[in-house]
Amino acid sequence: MNNFRFHAYTDIYFGKGQIINLPDILKQFGKRVLLVYGGGSIKKNGIYDKIYELLQDFEITELSGVEPNPRITTVRKGVELCKEKQIDVVLPVGGGSTIDCSKVIAGGAYYEGDPWDLVLDPKKIKKVLPIVTILTLAATGSEMNKNAVISNMDTNEKFGTSSHDFIPQASILDPEYLYTLPAIQTAAGTADIMSHVFENYFKTMTSAFIPDRFAEGILEACIKYCKVALEKPDDYEARANLMWASSMALNGLVGAGNGAAWTCHPIEHELSAYYDVTHGVGLAILTPRWMRYILSEDTVDRFVMYAENVWHLKPQEDKFLMANQAIDLTEKFFKECGIPMTLTEIGIDDSKFDIMAEKAVRYGGLERAYVPLDVQDVKEILRMCL
Amino acid sequence: MNNFRFHAYTDIYFGKGQIINLPDILKQFGKRVLLVYGGGSIKKNGIYDKIYELLQDFEITELSGVEPNPRITTVRKGVELCKEKQIDVVLPVGGGSTIDCSKVIAGGAYYEGDPWDLVLDPKKIKKVLPIVTILTLAATGSEMNKNAVISNMDTNEKFGTSSHDFIPQASILDPEYLYTLPAIQTAAGTADIMSHVFENYFKTMTSAFIPDRFAEGILEACIKYCKVALEKPDDYEARANLMWASSMALNGLVGAGNGAAWTCHPIEHELSAYYDVTHGVGLAILTPRWMRYILSEDTVDRFVMYAENVWHLKPQEDKFLMANQAIDLTEKFFKECGIPMTLTEIGIDDSKFDIMAEKAVRYGGLERAYVPLDVQDVKEILRMCL
Repeated sequence: MNNFRFHAYTDIYFGKGQIINLPDILKQFGKRVLLVYGGGSIKKNGIYDKIYELLQDFEITELSGVEPNPRITTVRKGVELCKEKQIDVVLPVGGGSTIDCSKVIAGGAYYEGDPWDLVLDPKKIKKVLPIVTILTLAATGSEMNKNAVISNMDTNEKFGTSSHDFIPQASILDPEYLYTLPAIQTAAGTADIMSHVFENYFKTMTSAFIPDRFAEGILEACIKYCKVALEKPDDYEARANLMWASSMALNGLVGAGNGAAWTCHPIEHELSAYYDVTHGVGLAILTPRWMRYILSEDTVDRFVMYAENVWHLKPQEDKFLMANQAIDLTEKFFKECGIPMTLTEIGIDDSKFDIMAEKAVRYGGLERAYVPLDVQDVKEILRMCL
Repeated sequence: MNNFRFHAYTDIYFGKGQIINLPDILKQFGKRVLLVYGGGSIKKNGIYDKIYELLQDFEITELSGVEPNPRITTVRKGVELCKEKQIDVVLPVGGGSTIDCSKVIAGGAYYEGDPWDLVLDPKKIKKVLPIVTILTLAATGSEMNKNAVISNMDTNEKFGTSSHDFIPQASILDPEYLYTLPAIQTAAGTADIMSHVFENYFKTMTSAFIPDRFAEGILEACIKYCKVALEKPDDYEARANLMWASSMALNGLVGAGNGAAWTCHPIEHELSAYYDVTHGVGLAILTPRWMRYILSEDTVDRFVMYAENVWHLKPQEDKFLMANQAIDLTEKFFKECGIPMTLTEIGIDDSKFDIMAEKAVRYGGLERAYVPLDVQDVKEILRMCL
């Protein structure tokens, strides 16, 4: 294992009705709360009203309309509100987009320049307002980590940024909040969770035994419970395991002791930056093609491990056969969850492959990935997705 | 899954040479450090000198001689030092005993009465000095959790206490510090880690899928790497995985969503209270007997899962056969690691079984265990250990 720091300090309140703790959590930080949310689903499912009922002693300022790929324009509005209203704590209620947007708002509140600077250069993040999240989508893991991804549609840029102080102080994870999700969001969110695991699981370093086993456990949970949740949206145990999978996949546990750069995420960021696709859908499309592309004598043993420990395939002599079976099962799984599995189906053709591949390599650090990729490699993977 | 709170906020610095971060970690809390350690092994392996070299700008007060089952008498000495020297931060360097002792010292520093009160009644712990640990034994998980166990040899009492504020602020985990451990401590420490997992893994609640998979991964790591470390004490990867197993087994991950009381630990506490045995040795002796005693139609499915997922036994029709094979493998494993596997071998006869069983039930909450046990049950398990 490589050296690592693990500091997932978020105070997690997991389970039914945990929102009851919200006033006690928030009052540690102050009275003036910036409530951040997206398109208004929290008004339909009752969370919005519940928050106002619980926070009668607080001053709430609202920022609504956060986009599925959150825009820097929305961040700027939030930063202005923080400064104008002297906000003490930022309260995103939603999925990763709402939480990511809130993180950069919380950093922007203490920054004099344009918050886009904080996306381009994380070193400029010096101080951050406390963040408390209420999660309504199991996907990005943002509820328990330091990452945020923001889009700038003017420049077709979607970049990740991160700060140790972006880690939420507390997160409320109530699996019942997932009951009313559209099926595609359950499926795409699961694909996102699985991709976070894959990005860390496929690596040259073979001695991170415990992180590898944790990775496999999370993948098995996703495979088992996503289908249950799609068939029976109010299955508590399925939602609970998917929600916990989200936090566990990207809080540092699975990546502990691993130093390699990611692959599918930087490529997907270019798809989202140019076409505004659902992040998890882009990842699901890319993942099996990336796996096939990098499968070789050098990587086959990891794929065999994946085949045995996640898909429980019986050991076979032909390692490549096993590896390909596992990759086929991965693709079939996403398809059976209802995810469109080609770029063509979601309206993307090859016209921007050159620029997307070039930017994925330039910004994504793909030369440091498990299997390093250049522009031609990325274009080939994108072509496999048509 | 039951509702739970997960807040493992310790800042972990894992890997070779991480002690270099000690000054930066400590200076957040102040200059006056109480250095707590045991029998002096840290003087032999160079950690002691390294600490003085790094902490030239700090005022160090020492408390040495912490016992393997730490005594309340030592806690009292530490509390006096904290008050007299106005200590800012407590720095245990050692295994669970040293860390546990330091936790109650850190709580006692803000308490006016006798610190034994804090062991008998955790509610009396109101405020705690910050704790930073340097771990030299992979076993109790105390480096990342809220628990402490203290013995009172005057009254033959050994009790656990706990406080959210006992969770260390930071812990330095350098696997190289384990190279010089005596073999029995490597083995007994591993048995302790495995017991923490067993206490949470064997439960009626079957829906905590992710915690169950994490549990199995930690157990597999222990089984694989303990033998490697015993054969080759300076095998870095073996030590790294055992050290990480220690923290992961008891920081809340494996127990997430599980509400049952523990079984082997409260029984072992009575062995230690009367005979001062090594905690991990007592646990290793008790564990397979406890497993055999509670195996029944009601519990067999969990043991089959254990047999399949941890020992990788092939599915068989006879569930009890599989379960017993897994229990036999557990006992064989401890034996092969060099642990004396009967009470007789460590000089304990049945003369105190009555009082020990009675106290284990009275103080251990065994009526709320996975399989509830009464005094007769505990005595029978103890007899099986002779």
